[in-house]
Amino acid sequence: MSGSVGQVLVTGGGGFIGTALTRLLLSQGIKVRNLDFVPNDFTAPGLRHFQGSFLDHGLTREAMAGVDCLFHLAATTFTREANQNPARDAQENILGTLQLLDYACEAGVKRVVFCSSGGTVYGPTDLDLIPETAPTNPISAYGISKLACEKYMRLYDASSASGVGNGALSTVTLRVANPYGAGQNISKAQGALTTFCHRAVRNEPIEIWGDGTVERDYIDVRDVATALLAAARAVKVSGTEINIGSGRGASLNELVSGITAQLGHAPTVTYRAARSFDVPRNILDIAKAKRALDWEPVIGLRAGIANLLADMQSRPEA
Amino acid sequence: MSGSVGQVLVTGGGGFIGTALTRLLLSQGIKVRNLDFVPNDFTAPGLRHFQGSFLDHGLTREAMAGVDCLFHLAATTFTREANQNPARDAQENILGTLQLLDYACEAGVKRVVFCSSGGTVYGPTDLDLIPETAPTNPISAYGISKLACEKYMRLYDASSASGVGNGALSTVTLRVANPYGAGQNISKAQGALTTFCHRAVRNEPIEIWGDGTVERDYIDVRDVATALLAAARAVKVSGTEINIGSGRGASLNELVSGITAQLGHAPTVTYRAARSFDVPRNILDIAKAKRALDWEPVIGLRAGIANLLADMQSRPEA
Ligand SMILES: NC(=O)c1ccc[n+]([C@@H]2O[C@H](COP(=O)([O-])OP(=O)(O)OC[C@H]3O[C@@H](n4cnc5c(N)ncnc54)[C@H](O)[C@@H]3O)[C@@H](O)[C@H]2O)c1
Ligand SMILES: NC(=O)c1ccc[n+]([C@@H]2O[C@H](COP(=O)([O-])OP(=O)(O)OC[C@H]3O[C@@H](n4cnc5c(N)ncnc54)[C@H](O)[C@@H]3O)[C@@H](O)[C@H]2O)c1
Repeated sequence: MSGSVGQVLVTGGGGFIGTALTRLLLSQGIKVRNLDFVPNDFTAPGLRHFQGSFLDHGLTREAMAGVDCLFHLAATTFTREANQNPARDAQENILGTLQLLDYACEAGVKRVVFCSSGGTVYGPTDLDLIPETAPTNPISAYGISKLACEKYMRLYDASSASGVGNGALSTVTLRVANPYGAGQNISKAQGALTTFCHRAVRNEPIEIWGDGTVERDYIDVRDVATALLAAARAVKVSGTEINIGSGRGASLNELVSGITAQLGHAPTVTYRAARSFDVPRNILDIAKAKRALDWEPVIGLRAGIANLLADMQSRPEA
Repeated sequence: MSGSVGQVLVTGGGGFIGTALTRLLLSQGIKVRNLDFVPNDFTAPGLRHFQGSFLDHGLTREAMAGVDCLFHLAATTFTREANQNPARDAQENILGTLQLLDYACEAGVKRVVFCSSGGTVYGPTDLDLIPETAPTNPISAYGISKLACEKYMRLYDASSASGVGNGALSTVTLRVANPYGAGQNISKAQGALTTFCHRAVRNEPIEIWGDGTVERDYIDVRDVATALLAAARAVKVSGTEINIGSGRGASLNELVSGITAQLGHAPTVTYRAARSFDVPRNILDIAKAKRALDWEPVIGLRAGIANLLADMQSRPEA
């Protein structure tokens, strides 16, 4: 894998992270194909849509022809749905990803960058910062299928000794922390920060389960996009996993302070009983990303919140 | 889960480990149902066959009714076949196991004991003894699907916080090292020791790849059977994995010495070039099994070899 990235395909390119990635790729003059049920919400000369599912053999094969680099971002489930039906999650996301790897080999794709989840693959931990070598004991079906996909990424990697794959495909997994930012889907309730900002601009109370000291690793989606591109280009990362986070924890109360500072007034906050499944801390160690990808996040929490609030305020429904 | 085991179902009960387990269970007065394509090679009043696949919904549901404890030993692939078709392996073994877990919940099964593979889930390691907390980076599709099944065992365990399952099913995984013993299938080339003994009694040369210093953890299948039964009975092991091995490494050359001592003469040995995928050492730490299952292996390598050779010599084709 050289430093250059030619024709790329993004599965799930119409989603939250996929849109941010597509925007970045196009801004760098890279041609993008998007394989998703939904198109991106913008058009550009370098952008082509393949509308449908990555589980659709014909469409996926067509979209993959001539592609150098595949960003596999589509996921058919999130935590809640996956736990409701672990078999469906495994069928679509594990088997679907394996099928995609087989197609990528057939099509002569050089690199696959897979989007995994740093918030779920490790499971509960006492570590202050979680390195990639930490135990991986996911406690959700979503985390388990992500972990299985990571292992298949390794298996198909050309540098592994498995003999699986075509001996030419290089794979990298990014374990992304908690992304937030413009365009995040509120209804999916994925991100606390996006939900908080959405409520704050509508003057609705922010709900906090517990005392607000629960810490997570929030990263602006534009920083996730630069990490994905760096992973596509990096040479010595083949067959490994790399944490992508902000490098620091922020408590729910800190999110509220950040919003307050931006808005100039404090939003209403309702504290509710803590939920047993909320682990107190989940912060990724990003030393490997700095070293191996020569990447680091550049958007601080305050700047990210400002951007997110501005986006919320400009949305018609705000 | 109390210390008593009532009606049990064994998937793959007609196989190598399954036959040893069935024999042990029957000897303890425990009623056994065997769900396998092949029946066990013995009959007993307490034994009932359900001939077919654990992937067959109707048959599996029927076999599961009224069962307290399920030993899930069936696997449709081994290392070679799984690498030839990772998607088929995942479909049958990951999805099949998930389906079995769903049925077990429906049927009110109290415990599932899952047979995983200590030789493959860890992947290459520098550790002298591998504890259960070691990194798990399998380099084969077979090891990946076993690892995924282990994680689903945890997810369905009643003591986990996932909310998946029926809140009453307790699961345990045994990571079994390299079992050997009477009844092991020679054609599947699963075990070096069984293959060596088979060749020695037929006066065929034993083939060793490399210089014979490669060390593995060989355990008599009768010791595996006692571990499986202990895991069905143990109380505080819910939702965890436990290594089952001999506690020590034996080199290929040591296997040859053992055979020589038993036969009274040295078998012919042909040394061939080392294979890149043979890791030098893979020995499991069995401290947890001793502590949590109050189990330890009682059949030493010499005694195991004597038993295996006697079995080989009594087989008609020997
Ligand atoms: N948002 C997070 O908190 C987070 C954190 C870590 C990792 N991730 C991972 O990042 C990836 C992207 O997440 P996101 O936040 O952008 O989610 P998103 O829901 O905004 O985007 C996912 C996109 O995938 C598309 N998609 C779903 N099923 C598809 C299918 N069968 N075929 C084609 N497209 C399909 C959806 O239409 C959607 O546009 C996912 O793999 C997710 O698991 C997300
Ligand atoms: N033998 C080893 O070296 C070893 C080591 C560690 C773990 N294991 C695991 O132990 C378990 C038993 O292994 P074994 O050595 O006894 O293998 P085996 O091949 O002797 O027995 C497996 C049995 O499963 C049956 N089976 C296969 N597909 C089935 C299906 N769809 N439905 C019902 N039955 C089916 C086979 O007919 C066979 O009788 C497997 O899960 C294996 O992965 C084996």
